[in-house]
Amino acid sequence: MTGQRGLTLTPIGTLRTPWQTTSACPRNGRQPNPAPRCTAHVLPEYQDGLQSLEGFSHLILLYWLDQAKPAEMCFAPPFDPTPRGLFATRAPWRPNPVGLSVVAFDGFQAPGVLLVRYLDCLDGTILLDIKPYLPTTDSEPAATMGWLDPHATRPHCSAPEKAR
Amino acid sequence: MTGQRGLTLTPIGTLRTPWQTTSACPRNGRQPNPAPRCTAHVLPEYQDGLQSLEGFSHLILLYWLDQAKPAEMCFAPPFDPTPRGLFATRAPWRPNPVGLSVVAFDGFQAPGVLLVRYLDCLDGTILLDIKPYLPTTDSEPAATMGWLDPHATRPHCSAPEKAR
Repeated sequence: MTGQRGLTLTPIGTLRTPWQTTSACPRNGRQPNPAPRCTAHVLPEYQDGLQSLEGFSHLILLYWLDQAKPAEMCFAPPFDPTPRGLFATRAPWRPNPVGLSVVAFDGFQAPGVLLVRYLDCLDGTILLDIKPYLPTTDSEPAATMGWLDPHATRPHCSAPEKAR
Repeated sequence: MTGQRGLTLTPIGTLRTPWQTTSACPRNGRQPNPAPRCTAHVLPEYQDGLQSLEGFSHLILLYWLDQAKPAEMCFAPPFDPTPRGLFATRAPWRPNPVGLSVVAFDGFQAPGVLLVRYLDCLDGTILLDIKPYLPTTDSEPAATMGWLDPHATRPHCSAPEKAR
């Protein structure tokens, strides 16, 4: 039941970031302080879809992690000795290497060019989708983080004595 | 630069929900009260990737909206007279019809079968990815919602006099 089109994706644009190699990419988009400004360049045929985007402070970007190695179902993360299941991580080597970032949206640099912060992907990454971030359905500030809790990137403004 | 594999997705499982037709699906997963329990059935070859998922209270599920009509860059939503850009909506008819839900994770019903709440998609929807929800990077409770603000699904526990 895959409809008429099959499970094939089409690029809608390109992400420009400061990182030219996977080893240069930060662990996540909140790690660099300050978070560098990145841009999302939407192809002309999709730019009409950007109307009414102003007023959303945050967006969800989906993109294609084309440099990821083949999926590995279980592996020991660099910062943890215990092997973990892939779906309990945000590692890029997934059966479907679709990356997801919640980004701050700082408006348009030019028509079709979005200014965003909190990306962590390679320069030139293929953009697949832009969704408005809705705190009413997407925000769960009290969510628990399982094994990742001690390794989490905490907000930079946390007082050191309170940070774990 | 699409690597060796092209932009092709592969199903990792199936979502079971109470909704058999698109018209029966709720507007979003927080609208039904109470939110019905749904299940995500992961194919055997991917079940090793579910290790260490316990302890995460919420997950991000990506799935394939195979019943969506062709993408339309600008349209008037049913609840708003003004035409809006597609990327300022969560409509399913997108250039890449990948749906995203932040769901509550209630544990395993059986090996490879996850109990979740807050889905809004059709029964039988193809599952593409499971990511752990990380409040440190995914939660923006103060995000603004632009044109969607007056139409938002507010939490059921809001006092009516405070809800807008």
